Amino acid sequence: MPRLLVVLLLLALSLVACVSAVPAVIRMVPADPTAASSGAVDDADALFCDSWRLSVETANAGPWLAVPARCGDFVRDYMEGPRYASDSAIAAADALAFASDALAAAAEWGGSASARPAWVFDVDETLLSNAPYYAVNGWGLQEFNETSFDEWVDAAKAPALPSSLNLYNQLQGLGFHVILLTGRSEFQRNATESNLLFSGYNSWEKLILRQSSDIGKTAVQYKSERRAAMEAEGFKILGNSGDQWSDLIGSPMATRSFKLPNPMYFIS
Amino acid sequence: MPRLLVVLLLLALSLVACVSAVPAVIRMVPADPTAASSGAVDDADALFCDSWRLSVETANAGPWLAVPARCGDFVRDYMEGPRYASDSAIAAADALAFASDALAAAAEWGGSASARPAWVFDVDETLLSNAPYYAVNGWGLQEFNETSFDEWVDAAKAPALPSSLNLYNQLQGLGFHVILLTGRSEFQRNATESNLLFSGYNSWEKLILRQSSDIGKTAVQYKSERRAAMEAEGFKILGNSGDQWSDLIGSPMATRSFKLPNPMYFIS
Repeated sequence: MPRLLVVLLLLALSLVACVSAVPAVIRMVPADPTAASSGAVDDADALFCDSWRLSVETANAGPWLAVPARCGDFVRDYMEGPRYASDSAIAAADALAFASDALAAAAEWGGSASARPAWVFDVDETLLSNAPYYAVNGWGLQEFNETSFDEWVDAAKAPALPSSLNLYNQLQGLGFHVILLTGRSEFQRNATESNLLFSGYNSWEKLILRQSSDIGKTAVQYKSERRAAMEAEGFKILGNSGDQWSDLIGSPMATRSFKLPNPMYFIS
Repeated sequence: MPRLLVVLLLLALSLVACVSAVPAVIRMVPADPTAASSGAVDDADALFCDSWRLSVETANAGPWLAVPARCGDFVRDYMEGPRYASDSAIAAADALAFASDALAAAAEWGGSASARPAWVFDVDETLLSNAPYYAVNGWGLQEFNETSFDEWVDAAKAPALPSSLNLYNQLQGLGFHVILLTGRSEFQRNATESNLLFSGYNSWEKLILRQSSDIGKTAVQYKSERRAAMEAEGFKILGNSGDQWSDLIGSPMATRSFKLPNPMYFIS
């Protein structure tokens, strides 16, 4: 087992048609039978789960192992409905606004002529969406299955997150060197490159995957080390986009970091 | 003007009864006349504004000067409805869960016998809620009025954020030294102490306010310097609660930081 993809999480919710089949759903208000039969999230659950999601996205929650059982329907609705796409699009718009300003500021101040402006992207749930995998694997509620997830990776058919693909192309147009830094392992290089090309990412400065020497490192440690190496090579990391705080924190950090949404799992 | 409360923000929304009186509300879908007459947020605005709020809470948005005009109703509804209370309560629950574990871990490892466990709290929109002030000052949309806000501070009648008061009492019960670190100025010490007592905060290790020597410093710089001083005094800052990222980032940081919601204004 040479890979150390530290996907901890992974409960969630089988896509049952009837909420009465879901065990241990905590309800603070009486269930509306109409709502229940359609699998809708009730008001109390919606309020709690939305607050839980905010605590995850702000890192208040800290490390977490599983989507709360009562939030399975909520996560499904969030991912399948317009909210995931909207939140991702605003994150990309924030990143693009910063990127334009940062290049203009660098040009104005003169900057270091030799420093190459770089943008770091994570891959899973950042450039590529594994939502089709999680949609047929219960958005988690069962334990993470490395075998089936690796088969999904090998199939190389994950779609692009549309707002990330647009940002990616815009950043390349602005002159950024795009570096991909993923928790996937070196043995998945071919599948990952195939999938990136399949989903519309046409070129990159480099694609960095975990080596055998990275086994046992947290994502924070592994990714920080690789960002330090980029800086040593003369890249100036202006921006970093990732769906996990472990993509973004540590030292050195990018000038600005952009947290993409992910209510499905946590990686330390 | 001896204070440097760097409240930048401050647009928002006068609480008009009829949405037709609100200028420049951008609508991506035709307004439902029923919804409009009740001042409700339409679906497209709700989707955008919820994503905007997430970008603020994750710091993706970076510095921002004003609530987007189309989100004035959304911010009012968020603050006055159950969501603000729910989000604040989950942030407090996250903090308390960490606090209990952190003390247990420190006891288990032996730790430094001389280090006093400390928790830092910001004041405005963290311990005290200024929602009653913003409710009658349009939740912002007009420019920030320092004169009227200072009058509100002097009145010393801001209520506690209930979940913060509960957390505060629980942390003191666990043995934490509670230190209050606020962007308010020294001349507001008496009013601030009166307000804290009025709203139920009965004791604190110390209350740190901006001195004249802090004029011109960002909140990040000022608060980082004061956290460094706390550590030099022998406090171990395990936790930090604030509604602004500028309460939390910088060096040194607490072991864990907890971002409380605030969609009303931004302080750098």
